[in-house]
Amino acid sequence: MSLVEKLQWRYATKKMDSSKSVSQETVEEILEAVRLTASSSGLQPYELIVITNPDLREKIKAVSNNQTQVTDCSHLVIFAAWDTYTAQRINDAFDMTETVRNFKNDAGVAYRQTLLTNYPARDPEVNFTHAAKQAYIGLGTALIAAAEAGVDSTPMEGFHAKALDEILNLKEKGLRSAVMLALGYRKEEEDWLVKLKKVRRPKEKFISWIN
Amino acid sequence: MSLVEKLQWRYATKKMDSSKSVSQETVEEILEAVRLTASSSGLQPYELIVITNPDLREKIKAVSNNQTQVTDCSHLVIFAAWDTYTAQRINDAFDMTETVRNFKNDAGVAYRQTLLTNYPARDPEVNFTHAAKQAYIGLGTALIAAAEAGVDSTPMEGFHAKALDEILNLKEKGLRSAVMLALGYRKEEEDWLVKLKKVRRPKEKFISWIN
Repeated sequence: MSLVEKLQWRYATKKMDSSKSVSQETVEEILEAVRLTASSSGLQPYELIVITNPDLREKIKAVSNNQTQVTDCSHLVIFAAWDTYTAQRINDAFDMTETVRNFKNDAGVAYRQTLLTNYPARDPEVNFTHAAKQAYIGLGTALIAAAEAGVDSTPMEGFHAKALDEILNLKEKGLRSAVMLALGYRKEEEDWLVKLKKVRRPKEKFISWIN
Repeated sequence: MSLVEKLQWRYATKKMDSSKSVSQETVEEILEAVRLTASSSGLQPYELIVITNPDLREKIKAVSNNQTQVTDCSHLVIFAAWDTYTAQRINDAFDMTETVRNFKNDAGVAYRQTLLTNYPARDPEVNFTHAAKQAYIGLGTALIAAAEAGVDSTPMEGFHAKALDEILNLKEKGLRSAVMLALGYRKEEEDWLVKLKKVRRPKEKFISWIN
């Protein structure tokens, strides 16, 4: 399948088949794509928390408008973004880069210093928002990776973020929930959306050109 | 190429070859992938502005820390997010969906009303941030679409958003710049990054499991 075909195939699955599991290997492939995608300054300012535990998912469903995908899916992935940028997080990322590449130059040193000067001093809310945006690059990537593997998925924003953060003890890890992704397989006969046409604004209303 | 191979191939190109153009057909393929990807409630709360005009790109470079990709790339794509959610924007999206699907049900009517009640009343800044996150799903998609087509790309946040908005008269269109993407072809001999290894946190530090 080409990328466009994958994007045509995928849809926000409304009813998952709770009897079907995605293989560990396939889930890891999907997550690997997220790990490899881009992020601002390469900081990857988020983590993925993959939940299969049924009790925990019941608790999460209760703070997620009772969306059934939370418990019916095979793997529930929480995209948890850094609650702020700290000097340590920035330094860890740059240290790792220098180690892996065995390379250090003046431009890199200056760039690290620019981030150290600017990011930790900003309002944590600004930093979290910036980090969460990077997580959405990962989300977009995961949707494609899932489709490539023939796995259905549902991106979900409809949850009480603070309640979810408490359930997962995210605060003590310096994280905040940004968005969730349910991975699994559709239960076609109970999914009202699966047979409906995908709707997008026509390209004339989505794209403009300045030549 | 598999998705993971595409993600391994791509990198944030630091030096574009200004003598090479991406074909119109290929650019349209990349943008089509963005048009097809997911967004919250299917609202697609952003637009793409594709700029090839040299004078305009010089002006943009001046408010983008003089990043050379702005003028050296083949096509500069601005992801411009809705400045807020209005009743009209929400209604337009739901009207279009009902028309295309020739389908209307109680759940859809109720969902539209929920958004109409909640979104326009929120702080425009909250709405813009939410819209911009959706644009980042599109950005992640565009990076993959470009790689699939063998096109290099550079996602760019390092610009003065208000200045860019003024240059492009975005305010009067109810838009604000969220992120930019340069599309083109690398000038390998002048790109310091192209030969350096891609660095990502090991999966043990990026992914956790709760079974």
